[in-house]
Amino acid sequence: MTLNRNDFAAWKRIEVRWSDMDSMGHVNNAIYFTYLEQARIGFLRDQGAASGMKVGGKGFGLVSIGCDFRRQVHYPAQLDIGTRVTKIGNRSFHLEQGVFLEGDDTLMAHGRTVMCWVDYEQEKAIPLPDDIRAVLERFMA
Amino acid sequence: MTLNRNDFAAWKRIEVRWSDMDSMGHVNNAIYFTYLEQARIGFLRDQGAASGMKVGGKGFGLVSIGCDFRRQVHYPAQLDIGTRVTKIGNRSFHLEQGVFLEGDDTLMAHGRTVMCWVDYEQEKAIPLPDDIRAVLERFMA
Amino acid sequence: MTLNRNDFAAWKRIEVRWSDMDSMGHVNNAIYFTYLEQARIGFLRDQGAASGMKVGGKGFGLVSIGCDFRRQVHYPAQLDIGTRVTKIGNRSFHLEQGVFLEGDDTLMAHGRTVMCWVDYEQEKAIPLPDDIRAVLERFMA
Amino acid sequence: MTLNRNDFAAWKRIEVRWSDMDSMGHVNNAIYFTYLEQARIGFLRDQGAASGMKVGGKGFGLVSIGCDFRRQVHYPAQLDIGTRVTKIGNRSFHLEQGVFLEGDDTLMAHGRTVMCWVDYEQEKAIPLPDDIRAVLERFMA
Repeated sequence: MTLNRNDFAAWKRIEVRWSDMDSMGHVNNAIYFTYLEQARIGFLRDQGAASGMKVGGKGFGLVSIGCDFRRQVHYPAQLDIGTRVTKIGNRSFHLEQGVFLEGDDTLMAHGRTVMCWVDYEQEKAIPLPDDIRAVLERFMA
Repeated sequence: MTLNRNDFAAWKRIEVRWSDMDSMGHVNNAIYFTYLEQARIGFLRDQGAASGMKVGGKGFGLVSIGCDFRRQVHYPAQLDIGTRVTKIGNRSFHLEQGVFLEGDDTLMAHGRTVMCWVDYEQEKAIPLPDDIRAVLERFMA
Repeated sequence: MTLNRNDFAAWKRIEVRWSDMDSMGHVNNAIYFTYLEQARIGFLRDQGAASGMKVGGKGFGLVSIGCDFRRQVHYPAQLDIGTRVTKIGNRSFHLEQGVFLEGDDTLMAHGRTVMCWVDYEQEKAIPLPDDIRAVLERFMA
Repeated sequence: MTLNRNDFAAWKRIEVRWSDMDSMGHVNNAIYFTYLEQARIGFLRDQGAASGMKVGGKGFGLVSIGCDFRRQVHYPAQLDIGTRVTKIGNRSFHLEQGVFLEGDDTLMAHGRTVMCWVDYEQEKAIPLPDDIRAVLERFMA
């Protein structure tokens, strides 16, 4: 079953930059992770969760990230990146993100991210704080 | 079981650029995919397979890519990216890549890539040519 | 004399990406040239001039580019990039660009670009076509 | 008079990444500034000067940077970036950098950088410390 816009909750508009394209003439694969990051950080900021990023030596950490590429994206384009939470654990959570062209319901790319809450000094995952957990629950698919 | 250098066959040395780091002071997650790409293209070139990239409107296409992040990487550093083939299908194949610090056997990051052989004009996957298949078989794990 | 918004004619809004910042915690110097490029290509496209980019093996070429950095830029921010033409020669022309924060008249950075019209096959500058020249004259400071 | 390798003193080897190329099929203009930065930071590090980068809230700041593009660069390539100091003022200094292909004396690009020594907290330029000045004098053209 293919995901569409209805499957995502929080949205971020991103403009494709000409330099996002590589010599194949389409948006380079690594740039999709920049898009996912921009939408993810925007989402966490909007929800008041990103302010915790470096406060008190604790914050988000990336465990793993992946992306399925369905269709090529070319400059010029406006993208809508939708985000949803698909799992909340004790120390980690899962996000899924859909990349769509403005005004189009076709999934161009599908990102999956596992993040955790980290004590940066000890470099290990620690339990998610209650306020972050509350934000994530609101966007649980 | 954690992978180490012995699990990978083809190697590419990559120097971390200062600008690869983001404002968290470590190499940004999207940049790992640039590293994986640089090693992947170098590997395919070395094996004479990349010359087919745009010839006759056929070439490699990325189906999906992912990366697990184990340890942070900081400038300055020299990285060794190891590549192996883990699956060869009719139209697609799977690569795994390990990111190591020079002179160290600790897996810093672990990439997984699914690629296919594409008819760019028709925008669809077609059977892998024999010469590409032969190259991949030599690096099958 | 410091330039302000009144000194520029064509405008492009660009959103700063979190990843545009480097480990100093501000937008990296090389990224400004991506901003200038995005505004420049958008300007030429809007004026119908960029369609000539690769047509018939002729198009724009960069001769030199520079940027003065006045103030640091940080994520999150919306930037307005203003462009004006300051000189039109036989084969080349000069652009100046101002980088401003949304809703602010303080010049954050000041870019200067020399471009020419190139025969890509011969790799040499050739006279500017009349339609490109007409576009540039409209935005001459 | 065109500069060649003999005009530069400190050297840094940089490998072109495939992703450094844009959709024109050559290294993108903004990436040259990443090359210049990588060589500049490497040069300052090698001379023991970069350790001062963030120590005590003081360090280098970029005043302006520019680059003339002479020849296109394409992947795959190894570049040699040469650096020299052309002017040392009270609070600022000028660097020039030449970009060459490995084993070739043709200047591919020519960078000019003005840097200063900054009190980050006060956001203003302050006099260059003696140890930094001594390093710069050794590489004065």
